[in-house]
Amino acid sequence: MIYLDNAATTKPLFNAVKQSEKYLLCEYFNPSAKYKQGIETKKSIENARQIILKDLPPYFDVVFTSCGTESDNTAIFSFAKRGNVITTSGEHSAVYECFNQLKMRGIEVRFAKVLKDGRVDKEHLLSLVDDKTTFVSIVHVNNETGGINDVNDLSTAIKRKNPSVIFHSDGVQAFGKLPFSLSESVDLYSVSAHKIGGLKGVGALIKKKKLTLAPYIFGGGQENGLRSGTENVFGINVFAVAYNEKQANLRNDYEYVLSLKELFLSKLDKDVIKVISSEFCSPYILSLSAEGLRGEVIMHMMEEYGVIIGTGSACSSKNPHSRILKECGYGAKTLDGAIRISFSALNTKEEVEFAVEKLNECVKKLKGIMKK
Amino acid sequence: MIYLDNAATTKPLFNAVKQSEKYLLCEYFNPSAKYKQGIETKKSIENARQIILKDLPPYFDVVFTSCGTESDNTAIFSFAKRGNVITTSGEHSAVYECFNQLKMRGIEVRFAKVLKDGRVDKEHLLSLVDDKTTFVSIVHVNNETGGINDVNDLSTAIKRKNPSVIFHSDGVQAFGKLPFSLSESVDLYSVSAHKIGGLKGVGALIKKKKLTLAPYIFGGGQENGLRSGTENVFGINVFAVAYNEKQANLRNDYEYVLSLKELFLSKLDKDVIKVISSEFCSPYILSLSAEGLRGEVIMHMMEEYGVIIGTGSACSSKNPHSRILKECGYGAKTLDGAIRISFSALNTKEEVEFAVEKLNECVKKLKGIMKK
Repeated sequence: MIYLDNAATTKPLFNAVKQSEKYLLCEYFNPSAKYKQGIETKKSIENARQIILKDLPPYFDVVFTSCGTESDNTAIFSFAKRGNVITTSGEHSAVYECFNQLKMRGIEVRFAKVLKDGRVDKEHLLSLVDDKTTFVSIVHVNNETGGINDVNDLSTAIKRKNPSVIFHSDGVQAFGKLPFSLSESVDLYSVSAHKIGGLKGVGALIKKKKLTLAPYIFGGGQENGLRSGTENVFGINVFAVAYNEKQANLRNDYEYVLSLKELFLSKLDKDVIKVISSEFCSPYILSLSAEGLRGEVIMHMMEEYGVIIGTGSACSSKNPHSRILKECGYGAKTLDGAIRISFSALNTKEEVEFAVEKLNECVKKLKGIMKK
Repeated sequence: MIYLDNAATTKPLFNAVKQSEKYLLCEYFNPSAKYKQGIETKKSIENARQIILKDLPPYFDVVFTSCGTESDNTAIFSFAKRGNVITTSGEHSAVYECFNQLKMRGIEVRFAKVLKDGRVDKEHLLSLVDDKTTFVSIVHVNNETGGINDVNDLSTAIKRKNPSVIFHSDGVQAFGKLPFSLSESVDLYSVSAHKIGGLKGVGALIKKKKLTLAPYIFGGGQENGLRSGTENVFGINVFAVAYNEKQANLRNDYEYVLSLKELFLSKLDKDVIKVISSEFCSPYILSLSAEGLRGEVIMHMMEEYGVIIGTGSACSSKNPHSRILKECGYGAKTLDGAIRISFSALNTKEEVEFAVEKLNECVKKLKGIMKK
């Protein structure tokens, strides 16, 4: 199997699971318990927190959650309460649906347009910001196109117009993948473990220390009162080890994955397959379209060769067309044929060469250019 | 080590972890993905759902969440919106703090009194119900005393007074432990995996099919749109296997744990240790107090003998006294000396005999009755 759907989820890192395994069957204690074993378990969470924080500026803190989606919900419903609130029309559903919810609750919601490669239209975004804007959420890396939004630059520009704005970014497709450093103008940043070799069921909300976050889940007061519920000790520990490994190899992985993407593009038959992602996109994600064909059919054909690719976001598989690509301005033909290739540092050049060769073949067969 | 804090969390069942292990490193796919591996992963979740549902009446459905606390929050914030809402003063923080939050949002919140053993005062509860009551939440088994509330009887009585009430119960300490069947008058029921041999990070909200639940976490629309966020595939599968095992042995385990509790009580030196739990309490939980001493000191002394016991609920370890026991009507002396013994079917009679002998010893030493 050649797995090229790493933006949907990644294979957990063996090492991260092995190193944390003791929290599964042996050190299973409740981190709130006051006996030695409970305290040790709690310490492992605090240690994990420090690992996630270690490459972040000192004014950030981390709240562990159950997923990136919960992190987004927590940030949004904690701060998007008054005036007008802004996001982009290219957001992941985890943010987009929260804003739709806010709209239903009577809050003025503004959606900034996105460019052809899924990045936000900066000019339009800034034109939406006024003195009644209280909250802005801009995805760091578009999960379908890979379009990178410069969240440091955008948040700075937004705060120049209105310094009281709270700025959030969904960093799920960027964290542990892109070389970057969060600036002080970013207040909240959502991340997810299973996108970087951790497990499903763990995420985190990175927040400015001085920012008073309202809890979204109330109860026993875990996570300094900010996220109640017994902590997912095993998952949090796997997350930290996986992040550590990802972070240690981040630049190498980035360059390597970039070379994979370039290799893929160099061999891609652009006469039959349109490239949606631009040079401003994350190398981890490559959005393509075999216009006039159906992405799902291509996906299933590729499956027969043992190559796993995506069709738009796996997270919103109910609509026939990708909402995000539609917002990028593509018509039905492009939307029909959309596929997403997403790499990881575990992919080899041989896998990528095989995959692109088979993709060219499948598309040409379906278009009747090549014999089936 | 003799582990007698099973109400805080249980040792995950080896079998449940082993049987689900493939979802950790091999079948790691995103359940929303449309290729074979994604569909298979999704199927495992649906299979887990059927396992949780199999002993429930056919009018129930299951929504997987990240913990019992999230299940409680989802139920409460979805339905407790108008009129007056009622809970007990003996609730776990996961419900209690939500009601405090509702109060802050301007909703009329009513707390029913609890008896000495932590069960709700039925008469007082019913007196609070009127035609403006929209939502009632009553814990099934009190997490500190083990007091069992007959939620079928209570919900029926409440609905006789006001049929439009939505009835929720936090079943975290009952599910997979007590022999019972949910009646049709219970609308919503929260459960947690890690209290019955599953993992931390997984819970479920059992809901009546016909009831329209508002999602609490918005996004990609997982769990039939009721709980967004990539599913914790591994954790959900472990939960189902653990529940299956617990359910298969439920009556035997219940009888066995009851015999452990009775053994413990028969050897307990009641001259120096007061028994808070009554005959109406779950055999899994035994609340005691060495009046005049400090529970934490006893806990640490017991630790030296390798016996792990609790002091009130591990979930709310910030206050010196247990809120719940205080609401049961105990004074400072009893509250100071409160400890909680909580059994599992994995405990042996020898462990229990050793533990109670050491407990008697510790308390007598601390009271100066026995030489240190």
